[in-house]
Amino acid sequence: MTNEPLERYFFNPQGIAVIGASSDPTKLSYGVVRNLITHGYRGLIYPVNPKGGEIQGLPVYRSIAEVPDPVELAVIMVRAEAVAEALRACGERGLKAVIVISGGFREVGPEGAALEAALKDIAAQYGIRLIGPNCVGVMDAHLPLDTTFITMMPEPGHIAFVSHSGAICGGSIDWARSVGVGYSRIASLGNQVDVDIADGIRMMKDDPNTHVISVYAEGLPDGRRFVEAAASVYRTKPIVMLKAGLTAAGVQAVASHTGALAGNNDAYRAACHRAGVVMVHSLQEQNDVAMALATQPLPHGNRVALLTNAGGPAALAADALDRQGLVMAPISAATQERLKAVTPPGTQLGNPIDMLGGPRPEMYSAAGKILLEDPNVDMLMMLFVPQAITPVNEVVQSMVATRVGATKPLVACLVGGESLNEAIYTLNRGGVPYYRDPNRAARALGGLWEYRWLRERPDLTPTPITDVDRATVQALLDAAWAQGGAGFLDADTAARVVGAYKVPVPFSGLAATADEAVALAKKAGYPVVLKRIAADVIHKADVGGLALDLRDANAVRAAFGRVTDGGRTCAMVQRMIPAGHEVILGAKRDAQFGPQLMFGMGGLYVEILRDVAFRLAPISAEDARGMVAETAAGRILEGVRGAPPADISAVVDIVQRVGQLVSDFPRIAEMDINPLIVGQTGSGAWAVDVRIRIDGGLGIGD
Amino acid sequence: MTNEPLERYFFNPQGIAVIGASSDPTKLSYGVVRNLITHGYRGLIYPVNPKGGEIQGLPVYRSIAEVPDPVELAVIMVRAEAVAEALRACGERGLKAVIVISGGFREVGPEGAALEAALKDIAAQYGIRLIGPNCVGVMDAHLPLDTTFITMMPEPGHIAFVSHSGAICGGSIDWARSVGVGYSRIASLGNQVDVDIADGIRMMKDDPNTHVISVYAEGLPDGRRFVEAAASVYRTKPIVMLKAGLTAAGVQAVASHTGALAGNNDAYRAACHRAGVVMVHSLQEQNDVAMALATQPLPHGNRVALLTNAGGPAALAADALDRQGLVMAPISAATQERLKAVTPPGTQLGNPIDMLGGPRPEMYSAAGKILLEDPNVDMLMMLFVPQAITPVNEVVQSMVATRVGATKPLVACLVGGESLNEAIYTLNRGGVPYYRDPNRAARALGGLWEYRWLRERPDLTPTPITDVDRATVQALLDAAWAQGGAGFLDADTAARVVGAYKVPVPFSGLAATADEAVALAKKAGYPVVLKRIAADVIHKADVGGLALDLRDANAVRAAFGRVTDGGRTCAMVQRMIPAGHEVILGAKRDAQFGPQLMFGMGGLYVEILRDVAFRLAPISAEDARGMVAETAAGRILEGVRGAPPADISAVVDIVQRVGQLVSDFPRIAEMDINPLIVGQTGSGAWAVDVRIRIDGGLGIGD
Repeated sequence: MTNEPLERYFFNPQGIAVIGASSDPTKLSYGVVRNLITHGYRGLIYPVNPKGGEIQGLPVYRSIAEVPDPVELAVIMVRAEAVAEALRACGERGLKAVIVISGGFREVGPEGAALEAALKDIAAQYGIRLIGPNCVGVMDAHLPLDTTFITMMPEPGHIAFVSHSGAICGGSIDWARSVGVGYSRIASLGNQVDVDIADGIRMMKDDPNTHVISVYAEGLPDGRRFVEAAASVYRTKPIVMLKAGLTAAGVQAVASHTGALAGNNDAYRAACHRAGVVMVHSLQEQNDVAMALATQPLPHGNRVALLTNAGGPAALAADALDRQGLVMAPISAATQERLKAVTPPGTQLGNPIDMLGGPRPEMYSAAGKILLEDPNVDMLMMLFVPQAITPVNEVVQSMVATRVGATKPLVACLVGGESLNEAIYTLNRGGVPYYRDPNRAARALGGLWEYRWLRERPDLTPTPITDVDRATVQALLDAAWAQGGAGFLDADTAARVVGAYKVPVPFSGLAATADEAVALAKKAGYPVVLKRIAADVIHKADVGGLALDLRDANAVRAAFGRVTDGGRTCAMVQRMIPAGHEVILGAKRDAQFGPQLMFGMGGLYVEILRDVAFRLAPISAEDARGMVAETAAGRILEGVRGAPPADISAVVDIVQRVGQLVSDFPRIAEMDINPLIVGQTGSGAWAVDVRIRIDGGLGIGD
Repeated sequence: MTNEPLERYFFNPQGIAVIGASSDPTKLSYGVVRNLITHGYRGLIYPVNPKGGEIQGLPVYRSIAEVPDPVELAVIMVRAEAVAEALRACGERGLKAVIVISGGFREVGPEGAALEAALKDIAAQYGIRLIGPNCVGVMDAHLPLDTTFITMMPEPGHIAFVSHSGAICGGSIDWARSVGVGYSRIASLGNQVDVDIADGIRMMKDDPNTHVISVYAEGLPDGRRFVEAAASVYRTKPIVMLKAGLTAAGVQAVASHTGALAGNNDAYRAACHRAGVVMVHSLQEQNDVAMALATQPLPHGNRVALLTNAGGPAALAADALDRQGLVMAPISAATQERLKAVTPPGTQLGNPIDMLGGPRPEMYSAAGKILLEDPNVDMLMMLFVPQAITPVNEVVQSMVATRVGATKPLVACLVGGESLNEAIYTLNRGGVPYYRDPNRAARALGGLWEYRWLRERPDLTPTPITDVDRATVQALLDAAWAQGGAGFLDADTAARVVGAYKVPVPFSGLAATADEAVALAKKAGYPVVLKRIAADVIHKADVGGLALDLRDANAVRAAFGRVTDGGRTCAMVQRMIPAGHEVILGAKRDAQFGPQLMFGMGGLYVEILRDVAFRLAPISAEDARGMVAETAAGRILEGVRGAPPADISAVVDIVQRVGQLVSDFPRIAEMDINPLIVGQTGSGAWAVDVRIRIDGGLGIGD
């Protein structure tokens, strides 16, 4: 399906029917017709109500069937029980785009959920793309178009907003108007029975007025769909993503709000990494970052110049820049010389460039332009604290003048309150994003740099790993499923599964008797280890079912009895791997985002150190390498205190193979290799202990 | 010195002289006289200027000597070069409190620093307490009193603000006025030649109008003085602390701003822990937290109820509460039943309590009061997104009504912009702190809980450890200093130093020959370890100068040659300690905050894992125990996966002894015990490798 129907019918329809339009000005449906008219929609508007008559000067049609061409979008605002019939009528009328504003569906309980399911069926039956139910509709501030009942329209601007919540759309418009920030488009998606966050992102990709896509999501039921959509858009337009339900409390709150499953935070972060989105954690941070992305060119580097009239805020800004991974630009001697000519006597010409208490307003643009011309400066933050002697509004005009012709990003931070209300508006309208706090301005610049980095990063699309033996794994899993159903594979089977994907596993075999163990040990070559084999013993070392470094037949015999609890279980005999670094490689299937990989510090303390990185599977070599490098385990593998580097390439290869394995076999619910023992460069890595849990492959808990 | 002169003369003087008062309205000194008059100071005001005449209706005195009684405070605003003379004249006139607003001192370079040093001397000579130079002075919004030239006066309120930076005072007043927040007192301290942050904090302690003390600091040159002041105040009044210069970039920015040494972040954090302050990292966060502490009672627990008209912001709030260590209050069935009667049909009665789109305004106070009566609820956050159908100002009045008679804290979060300007003001004036973003409201509640925890925590004052042999350490350090000056002690001396403080060290001795080594090994008992002894070899394992687990004389002989590089150095022979957990315990002297302790994961990877906690030394047992528990190393010592717990009490004892040692001997610049090997409970811990660096005891680099 192309985006064409989504974009054209929802954001530029030839005519709009409002089903359930009311002539009662206290009704929300009256507000929709009012907004379509007063907010400037230039197409045809058709109120539909069985009572007929006239609403706000427009003739009312008694049914959608009676509405003449052209009509390309319907907005349904009838009570929940009547929506299905109205939707069906739209289908019969040939409409392909419908917005259901009415609430009373999944969010109110099982009965509502049943009504909602019916809408989904009807939409599918008629090939209707449906936004809602339980939403406020869409806006395009440039066209203009407003299908909502929100009393205010945003100013035209360059931020597109895709929101699960309609209330947050209203609050955002209110905020934006008060600070001179504009939107390009707004889409409130509500319960997302059809058009979801993924569609919302795609709808904004080709809109020429949209420079940045802000997304507020609660659940992401089809997580992979979101990842694919975002990944296909983010190199064209930045996506700034806020998601509720990232903590246990938030998950619960989201569930009680819309019945959405909020999901797992680690999986969400892995998804955002693949999706190429800039993650934010509050509405304020989202707006702060989006304002900069909407108006500023991208920086070529991370060096920031601070131009200020007060030292304190600049010092706070310097701290905040450091936390964003940005650095203070070194100001060249030549630039300092030029600055001296346009700044007050006594100005500190290093960075921060502190013009002390009383610069004249025009000094901001004069010094700002000089700083932007310095090749060592990638971004500029202008700070100002109103003081008795300097007129705020002239300072602000000077800051806006700095913007003219600039090819590098700049932002403004003015610390104050009521004296700044006009200044904030002027700055934002003038293309210089305004922030009240140095930390927020620093975060905005950090967001620019982060997006620039994302856009330039190598393609993360994985190349399938094909030199694997799928048939063997299929057979092993089928046999295990047939025999025991859901649960853990025995250690031998687990080793054979990963072995079939060319993950190196030490030679091993199962012994039921001490004699068999000795024979296997001879075959494997000494030293060997013995491990108890029993499906319910997950952490072998904890219960004594493990014997290491057995160097001859006597040692094997002596250990066999202990490991197998006097012969009650079998023992796995395994070639002992020489010392190396112990890391953990895990994988599990997330209900929303599918298979995930985890890498980190292995050994007994994995739960305590929590030194782990997560990624979606399958995974490219580049991405796997980044995943390893992100952890302390990875830095240790690189070689610490003169230790030789470990075989990271072997680890990357194994990460990719495990990623392919869990992607190929949805029946694998989770698995881990703990430890994966990594030798020096060139000597490989070994999956010493493999644990695999299978289920029906359908999701959590089946 | 008591606080009396500080408080009385600076905040309630009987008469104020303004030295350098001008009749030119464009001069800042004109503004000071104007503010004293128009902002309502009721005492006598004496402009001083050699020209004489009249300023703003007041007779001008030609010198401070001519000013009649009562005069208790002088504000000096003459050029930098003339300040010393003016200050001396104040001293001659018998003044004990002076504010120097003039700039041009340390902040402009060496010449200014010399002028500043002279002020310090003169103040000391006359017993003058001096605020400034390079500041804006003080305000008391209740008295009222305003010695600044800032055009605005804050509304009377309950936040005291102590600020290094005058510009930030101005910006804060501007902000506060626009949102209906008031201040009790403001003190801008500038270069702090005499009255410093510590004095500033003490000045606010007994002010009945002050409920919370906000501090903005750049440097804290005498860190221990700050710690003592804050520690003596925080159980009476909360202190919310913001410091610039916590990163490398910030340190540089502060240095170029005021020439202050910003210091080390770890030491600062350790100091804040001891000082009992609530740390914040931005002006916004500082204001957000202070607003709540200024107006709300303290919570008895960390359980929060969310009352909302929109699910999205409540879900974001739930996430943010979790990040603050707060939890969602479980709403009892009885409370839910009561809520049902006062909320719209369909309201979700769990937590969040979501009244959906259109609650009537009075429902906020009705439901809010019921929630506050639930014993499971410790705090309340009321969220509201303006919607077409609900009048904002009535909602706000309802929220304010909830406050009346409440004994638990509550805050409001309204998401929006221009439609809220009046609401913000009404809420804050009505004692319900307003936040635009759910994260900020959650941080404010988190700040209340954090302060409540600080106020109730046990006393951290350490009891001196006295069963130590100071004389031996003194002798060892004196001998080492006499022999080699600054540098590392040899390993044997280092072991004897800690041994004298009863830190357990394994038996050891120094051997120059293999025969001596064998003799010592016999005395120590096998197995032993050999270590190369050479002052310049810090990390012994890196260079091969270490042999472990030598079980007999032959092994000792064989290892001796290798360890000593063929006899070129000595070897330390040491009893080998049985296996245990390896942790690191370090100490160093910080230039601002004095001796510091560090504890964390030991071994080779200490730099990579950065699992360390810091505290000031000396340290109480309680505080040492908390320090250990804060780290992953400490959690491992508690026993992981069925491992027996390690001897944490022994570790705590050693932490205290090392803390006492570095406090007793300023000559110890830094030291570490790495590893400290910790056995099972009851079996103790051993300082296996001790490294001590000494210097002249005066500070960094001497």
